[in-house]
Amino acid sequence: MKIVKYTDIDPVEFNNEIAMGIKARVLIGKNDGAENFCMRIFKIAENGYTPRHTHEWEHEMFIQSGTGKVLDGNEWKPVTSGTAVFIPGNVEHQIKNSGTEPLILLCIIPSGAPEL
Amino acid sequence: MKIVKYTDIDPVEFNNEIAMGIKARVLIGKNDGAENFCMRIFKIAENGYTPRHTHEWEHEMFIQSGTGKVLDGNEWKPVTSGTAVFIPGNVEHQIKNSGTEPLILLCIIPSGAPEL
Repeated sequence: MKIVKYTDIDPVEFNNEIAMGIKARVLIGKNDGAENFCMRIFKIAENGYTPRHTHEWEHEMFIQSGTGKVLDGNEWKPVTSGTAVFIPGNVEHQIKNSGTEPLILLCIIPSGAPEL
Repeated sequence: MKIVKYTDIDPVEFNNEIAMGIKARVLIGKNDGAENFCMRIFKIAENGYTPRHTHEWEHEMFIQSGTGKVLDGNEWKPVTSGTAVFIPGNVEHQIKNSGTEPLILLCIIPSGAPEL
C-alpha cells in the first residue's frame, strides 16, 4: 500500500507557450505497480493552461480546488471544486485556470499513455 | 465529454454494520463509455467506515476533504485532504472517518469490478 501526501512529491514544471504555469505530479503509476491506470495531479497557476491537444487515450478528471474552464468542442465550459470531467479518447481538449487561486485537478489516464 | 458536479448525482447510501454512513456516487463509468477504469466518490459521515474486505482489483484513492485512517496490514495510517492511497489487488483494506467533518474521497477501480 502506498500512502502519500501530494505536496511531498517534487513537481515537474511546464511553463511555456504550450503548457503554462503547470506543476505536475504522478501520484500513483507504473513505479508503484499500478498496472491499469495512472493518477496524476496538476496545479495550474493563475492564467495557466494545459496544452490544447488530442490523443487516443481518455482522461478522467476531478477538480480538487479552484475555478477553471474546459474546452468542449468549440465551447468553454466552467468547472470548479467537485466537478468531474470525462474526456473520451480522440476528443480535443484544454483546461485553463479562470480564477485567481490555483486550479488543482486530478487526471487519471490508462496505463501505456505517457505518465507526464 | 461529460462534465458533472458530483453533488448533482443522487447518491447510493450504505448504512449498516458492514458499511456505515456512506453516500456513494459513480462519477464516470461504463454508462459514460469509460472502458478502462471507473471513478467513484464516497462521502463518509462522522463515525462512518467502508467495509473491511479484500478483492482482486486495486484502488487508487485521493482524499478530497476531511480526516480519516486507512487500514494497512495491522496498522491504521492517517489520511487527510491531499493524500493519495494506492491499494493493490488482494490487499485487505478499510477506511474510517476519524474526524468530525465528512471524509470525502475519490476511488478509482478498473473496469469489470462492480462500480458500486
